[in-house]
Amino acid sequence: EIALCAANVFDYNLLTGLHVVVTAGPTREAIDPVRYITNQSSGKMGYAIAEAAAEAGARVTLISGPVNLPTPTRVKRIDVVRAEDMYNASMAVVDEGCDVFIATAAVADYRPSVTAEHKIKKSTEEIHLTLVKNPDIVAAVSAHAKRPFTVGFAAETRDVVAYAQAKLDNKKLDMIATNDVSGENVGFNSDNNALTVIWPGGHKVLPLAAKRQIAKQLIELIAIRHKRD
Amino acid sequence: EIALCAANVFDYNLLTGLHVVVTAGPTREAIDPVRYITNQSSGKMGYAIAEAAAEAGARVTLISGPVNLPTPTRVKRIDVVRAEDMYNASMAVVDEGCDVFIATAAVADYRPSVTAEHKIKKSTEEIHLTLVKNPDIVAAVSAHAKRPFTVGFAAETRDVVAYAQAKLDNKKLDMIATNDVSGENVGFNSDNNALTVIWPGGHKVLPLAAKRQIAKQLIELIAIRHKRD
Repeated sequence: EIALCAANVFDYNLLTGLHVVVTAGPTREAIDPVRYITNQSSGKMGYAIAEAAAEAGARVTLISGPVNLPTPTRVKRIDVVRAEDMYNASMAVVDEGCDVFIATAAVADYRPSVTAEHKIKKSTEEIHLTLVKNPDIVAAVSAHAKRPFTVGFAAETRDVVAYAQAKLDNKKLDMIATNDVSGENVGFNSDNNALTVIWPGGHKVLPLAAKRQIAKQLIELIAIRHKRD
Repeated sequence: EIALCAANVFDYNLLTGLHVVVTAGPTREAIDPVRYITNQSSGKMGYAIAEAAAEAGARVTLISGPVNLPTPTRVKRIDVVRAEDMYNASMAVVDEGCDVFIATAAVADYRPSVTAEHKIKKSTEEIHLTLVKNPDIVAAVSAHAKRPFTVGFAAETRDVVAYAQAKLDNKKLDMIATNDVSGENVGFNSDNNALTVIWPGGHKVLPLAAKRQIAKQLIELIAIRHKRD
């Protein structure tokens, strides 16, 4: 009933006239044509945020890694696989101009330094793989000349708030949302989530609720903070 | 019309009284609590084979990695994540006794030598990952004292038939099914497949068709070869 109530007061003009970009899902970093490194991101939180932003009146571009989710209504979706593809797609929309960038994607921080052209055979006892850093998308967006209001996500398994606060400062973000993915009832693959949202000088806890509900609350916070900037 | 015809003559008692075990899907090998190595297997071919075996009258156990598929009717499903879990589950059913073992799973050949307890931070420029070999499930089944009729799968991107023939010989399999996963219309994630099925002294090409249809044709071949043994 509380959730229903909160939904009813949701302002459907909060983001009217704004272009909101959301990244979502995992990326896949190929070892060879068959094997890759990825993570457990289902994309559900990012898709819920894209949907809530569209419901709040924004024009929404969703840059998505490989997920099994339908595209929300009135959302333009760009599909990517690798972190480098997501970086390039993100830079292209920020170059064009956007107002808010919400980086929910669980981008692979590292990729294999080389991708084998053919499937690696099982001939050696050990494989030594060198992983190199992928470009940091949200940091690049935040440092861009046409910088939008930039929101990061931090999925951690320990010291959750401390890491998120450090990320907010280091990457000069306007806001960061953080959840503890070590529990079973929140985060990756779950339909529920709980977030702690931090901005310079303040924070708000969004307690456990359906991801759609959490998404609307986050969009409200973003609209308020964006207006003040 | 040919496909329909083949479906119509499918013998619903081909495998009556037999216990058929099918492995399916990918496995996930954890780097840390968030990141893992996996592959593109959707599990569709294995699930279609489990369904066809059940329709042919067999008692079916399906040992499945993480996939987004419903369990076929009258099939007992055991869920696993890592290759070592799939090995242990497979050995348990072969220890108990089964008649046919069909290894369709795209088991990760290698796993990280260590799994980090917490998410690896993005603090170093490079990560050096040592991958060690996973147990070879189909070879272990084929070498088991209570050896069932053992069918392997080979997903290759080149020299497909030569590699499959070598695998048949080296692992002493009764049959191997091989497909070229480099094309877009077959193999991983597609609803269609084309297989070359090889056994000691013979082979049969199953041309491009729906995976359900290919599964029935493979079950027919297995039933014929199993009866002759």
